[in-house]
Amino acid sequence: MATIAPSRRIRRTPFTPGVEAAGVKGYTVYNHMLLPTVFESIEADYHHLKSAVQVWDVAVERQIELRGPDAARLMQMLTPRDLRGMMPGQCYYVPIVDETGGMLNDPVALKLAEDRWWISIADSDLLFWVKGLAYGYRLDVLVDEPDVSPLAVQGPQAEELVARIFGDAVRAVKFFRFSWFDFQGVSMAVARSGYSKQGGFEIYVDGTANGMPLWNALMEAGRDLDVRAGCPNLIERIEGGLLSYGNDMTRENTPHECGLGRFCSTQTAIGCVGRDALLRVAKEGPTQQIRPLSIAGDLPPCSAAWPLMAGTKRVGQITSAAYSPDQKTNVAIGMVRMTHWDEGTLLQVQTPDGLRDVTVHENFWA
Amino acid sequence: MATIAPSRRIRRTPFTPGVEAAGVKGYTVYNHMLLPTVFESIEADYHHLKSAVQVWDVAVERQIELRGPDAARLMQMLTPRDLRGMMPGQCYYVPIVDETGGMLNDPVALKLAEDRWWISIADSDLLFWVKGLAYGYRLDVLVDEPDVSPLAVQGPQAEELVARIFGDAVRAVKFFRFSWFDFQGVSMAVARSGYSKQGGFEIYVDGTANGMPLWNALMEAGRDLDVRAGCPNLIERIEGGLLSYGNDMTRENTPHECGLGRFCSTQTAIGCVGRDALLRVAKEGPTQQIRPLSIAGDLPPCSAAWPLMAGTKRVGQITSAAYSPDQKTNVAIGMVRMTHWDEGTLLQVQTPDGLRDVTVHENFWA
Repeated sequence: MATIAPSRRIRRTPFTPGVEAAGVKGYTVYNHMLLPTVFESIEADYHHLKSAVQVWDVAVERQIELRGPDAARLMQMLTPRDLRGMMPGQCYYVPIVDETGGMLNDPVALKLAEDRWWISIADSDLLFWVKGLAYGYRLDVLVDEPDVSPLAVQGPQAEELVARIFGDAVRAVKFFRFSWFDFQGVSMAVARSGYSKQGGFEIYVDGTANGMPLWNALMEAGRDLDVRAGCPNLIERIEGGLLSYGNDMTRENTPHECGLGRFCSTQTAIGCVGRDALLRVAKEGPTQQIRPLSIAGDLPPCSAAWPLMAGTKRVGQITSAAYSPDQKTNVAIGMVRMTHWDEGTLLQVQTPDGLRDVTVHENFWA
Repeated sequence: MATIAPSRRIRRTPFTPGVEAAGVKGYTVYNHMLLPTVFESIEADYHHLKSAVQVWDVAVERQIELRGPDAARLMQMLTPRDLRGMMPGQCYYVPIVDETGGMLNDPVALKLAEDRWWISIADSDLLFWVKGLAYGYRLDVLVDEPDVSPLAVQGPQAEELVARIFGDAVRAVKFFRFSWFDFQGVSMAVARSGYSKQGGFEIYVDGTANGMPLWNALMEAGRDLDVRAGCPNLIERIEGGLLSYGNDMTRENTPHECGLGRFCSTQTAIGCVGRDALLRVAKEGPTQQIRPLSIAGDLPPCSAAWPLMAGTKRVGQITSAAYSPDQKTNVAIGMVRMTHWDEGTLLQVQTPDGLRDVTVHENFWA
């Protein structure tokens, strides 16, 4: 693969100096910003993530801040998840849909206060959709991107490391909750969340200038824990069934197809712009759905949707795949038609290197 | 710089097989898609572009199609350029602004018919803003991304090459006009336009499957013209003053700051959502503006905004820079405060490798 050309348009993050010093070997671009993809190797990074603790530059999870009297109304317009029971200090994973029920993003929303929200976005300019709706509806709300950059601490030793920086009180933060903690005089939201199944925290670093001091403090404090620079790991996220917007789902898909029906309350999410479109799919169920898949044989990197075949009939596609050392097989995420989505169904996938045998599963590995 | 990690999220284009076969050495990501940045070397590509003809994979210029009775009204909502005089078959460069007059994109719009438009976009998910407005205003218009991928033919021999594929009638297409031409039974819009100052065409390739046949036909037909795979060239575009959204301007900037005031008809572009915000800046003029700059000495790649200094005072920034063999100096694009933007003003720029002397110009080189 070719190298990535430097330009201001591909934004560096507050943590890029630390990432580069740690010897990053691969990047992707996510929300117009650099996201590391590999340090030592994807397999070595994977084993380390599962056994120690890593610090991840996930500044690409840009925040959209909604502030003002109509903030909560606007937030509910964006998602079919019912937000009425959400309290300040909670994080909600929220599918975001357009008026046809198509996925525009799958962020985590943070409720800071009744009239102040952050949306921690996946890879699309969701800000444009939110601003368009706010303007079209003449809502009394400010919509902007603050100078806030998430830094994730993930792995079995994550709590220990984060407690060394923010104090033992951080241990009391529950899953998908956040509280405010002080770092060098700056108050930052610290949530128990992150894009792995190994446990950990996301620190919403307020102010670019505070990025590297926090990065360095974590690296220093975690030396005996074998802390390393890391990044979302392809193998681990597939094992855990963590979807990737743009890879495993696009604007073509409804949340129900993505297995996110449990986050859709189409009967009660009044005001959601996609509610009408989703009512029928919620009632009848989707005709295709995300499934875990295992693939036999050697695989090239998955850089496009690979057709899933039942004989000569296309019955879906695979969009993420990697060899898992722990599962001792290739693990994958795909979208499969209902006629072929039952556990144990045998299919084939067309890769650039030829056909491979595929088994459909119902549950992810982790 | 690290390599770019493959994934479906970073979309390949219909022409990627041709680009790879031609030995692409660098990519950037643009509209979630691969955009080549260098083949032989940026300097070698530059000399070849100015002397022969190149075929560019600019499929990243995704189209937004507006179709329906409110298409023209929606198009005018997006831009402060007055579209009343625009005829089918014309291309207009249109700054797109939000309700504060901030730039969201700087595409070329194609008017296919009164009720059908394409917007050939720069690097932002403009579709989300357009859909948000259309929904908020309940407009009778379809907004979608068709399977259309531009392929540019640029350089002094571009007309000769394009005529060999589409026939001599294509020679009659005027600058920023397009007509429909046939390739292997498929009708495609061919415009005299492109992101260089060397002249050429952009072919709006309809249908992914038609991409490589056209690529191969151009390469075959242009062998004696020394046709090569190319891409937008950093040096040539700076010399020519071709701005890059995300590099030289962002949502922070008004069109007037970007030197695009001539495309803003704030008195007559009735319906443009940013019109109110731009009325004052149109009257009083911007307090900072895009300027060509020359820089002395050796430079690292410009991967962030470099502060422009008058002594200890920050008076602007440089956002694109490269050494020009023809100008025998570093050419650059920056934003300069009005106190320091006169021709010949001497400033300094803070690069990662130290201070460099800068001269402000009023006119670009080409």
